Amino acid sequence: MAKRVCIIGCGAIGSLYAAHLARVAEVHAFVRRPEHAQALNQHGLRVSGKRDFTARLRATMDPSQLPAFDLGIVCTKSTQTAEAIAPVAHLFERGAVLSAQNGLGNEELIAERVRGYVLRGTTFMSGSRHSDTHVQMELDTATWLGPFEPTRTPFALVQEVAALLVESGLKAEALEDARPAQWSKLIFNASVNAVSALTELPHCPAFAEEAGFSDLGHLLHELINEGKAVAAALGIPLHEDPWEMNKIGAQTNHPPSMLYDIEHRYATEVDFLGGAIAREAARAGVSAPLHTALYRLVKGKEASWAWPRGGEEK
Amino acid sequence: MAKRVCIIGCGAIGSLYAAHLARVAEVHAFVRRPEHAQALNQHGLRVSGKRDFTARLRATMDPSQLPAFDLGIVCTKSTQTAEAIAPVAHLFERGAVLSAQNGLGNEELIAERVRGYVLRGTTFMSGSRHSDTHVQMELDTATWLGPFEPTRTPFALVQEVAALLVESGLKAEALEDARPAQWSKLIFNASVNAVSALTELPHCPAFAEEAGFSDLGHLLHELINEGKAVAAALGIPLHEDPWEMNKIGAQTNHPPSMLYDIEHRYATEVDFLGGAIAREAARAGVSAPLHTALYRLVKGKEASWAWPRGGEEK
Repeated sequence: MAKRVCIIGCGAIGSLYAAHLARVAEVHAFVRRPEHAQALNQHGLRVSGKRDFTARLRATMDPSQLPAFDLGIVCTKSTQTAEAIAPVAHLFERGAVLSAQNGLGNEELIAERVRGYVLRGTTFMSGSRHSDTHVQMELDTATWLGPFEPTRTPFALVQEVAALLVESGLKAEALEDARPAQWSKLIFNASVNAVSALTELPHCPAFAEEAGFSDLGHLLHELINEGKAVAAALGIPLHEDPWEMNKIGAQTNHPPSMLYDIEHRYATEVDFLGGAIAREAARAGVSAPLHTALYRLVKGKEASWAWPRGGEEK
Repeated sequence: MAKRVCIIGCGAIGSLYAAHLARVAEVHAFVRRPEHAQALNQHGLRVSGKRDFTARLRATMDPSQLPAFDLGIVCTKSTQTAEAIAPVAHLFERGAVLSAQNGLGNEELIAERVRGYVLRGTTFMSGSRHSDTHVQMELDTATWLGPFEPTRTPFALVQEVAALLVESGLKAEALEDARPAQWSKLIFNASVNAVSALTELPHCPAFAEEAGFSDLGHLLHELINEGKAVAAALGIPLHEDPWEMNKIGAQTNHPPSMLYDIEHRYATEVDFLGGAIAREAARAGVSAPLHTALYRLVKGKEASWAWPRGGEEK
């Protein structure tokens, strides 16, 4: 069956999905900037790194130019989910929409706007976007996907989407319950991103050091344990151990996305990361004092951008 | 009795003590920069604001030019206590040394180096330093002082020092136990400074807001309650309620000293503020997870200055 797929948001992850899927399906990219759409239509989309090819696809910022779709994959930042899906939501009435975003709460925002099926997704792929038409693939890791429970998405549909991703050359795994995978990444991401945003350190070896009293590894360990306790209170087992993920990541010196946002004074995804853990903890009747504290600090840091900076004034 | 007093460190607070005391005692200022000493010797020290006068005093950066003293007042940043007192410690063998610094742990550092009596001090005076020879007095509030317990400082000596401060035109109160005053300010300062350093917000109304879930007032309240619990575990009653101090301070939009340090990439006093609460909590066998977490974050932020900044590189 020839599928028609819409990629909503073409950053690094969206570009990787778009280019791969364009080899086995009719792919349209829904983007925000007219020059981005024009460049994709004119030059196609090149993938380098782990593989090297250029795919042809269609791109637009105008929802009226888009047909109905079998599948949508939302790849925007979590802060942009609602505004990105709203103008194209009607195109998925007979289709399905997969969130391949960070954190918790995107599927809810999609399901409020789309009448079709929603899929819960978590990806560990990574890439660097060199331009609007060139993305370098770094980690060629799987997308884990499963049903979003409230839309009663059939597991056969999840398997079909996973098969399409695999056919396109990506790794994917269909799961009856995608929450253990999503929560593993959520706990890891919420802990590492908040500490990085507040210290302005990249994900560096200090994040796993626990020798001295002031070492950050203690804090990461406590944040991760707190997140695990919230997952346990919600009855969600974990797919991977976030502390092991942290120990590996701490060797990369990679700047987490929230550090990039802080440095550029963009709204962070904290409401979908630590803020989501804090809210879910309250819902489950357990406490998450550290995630809640760091959530409030990151929100305070965002608020500080409205203040004149003392350092520049004196 | 004509007293001979040494002011160690002439920032805003040290300048206020030096100028006032120079009207009733022989005052020497021990400073780090030769041009600072020269300017004080040449022009004296002007106080404006709440009062207006210029005092003559002697200043030097050379310990060999200093006589023995009846009283020393240490006014450096806590991070500089050890190196500032070391070269002049022998001048107080028959005298006393008062710490009028931020946080907890300065008296210990002084007592390790000085054979005379040590006094525990906490001041709420504030001023702005316009130049090496001009300080503007802002808050004309009291210095609270008491014995540092391990040196068995006689209370009569505390009263004598308080009387000298009052004679010089400052407010001062001799206390049999200065820890309740010191801990009130410590809890306030540790909470406000850490939140300000990490958010880069000045002490603004948000620090007392508790309406929404993400509001920073919740975090300040929890930090202050945690600090109170540590004081209680140590058997130290509080002199004032730090939450009330926070509510008043939050209306000032004043940048706390740690925010100034962060903006200028100077080592902060966090080891003497939140770090001291975290250590004292461990000593008392109680937990202080929030002060400990914020302490580690501020130490991480200091460590980040050794990293290249992503925002400037990309």
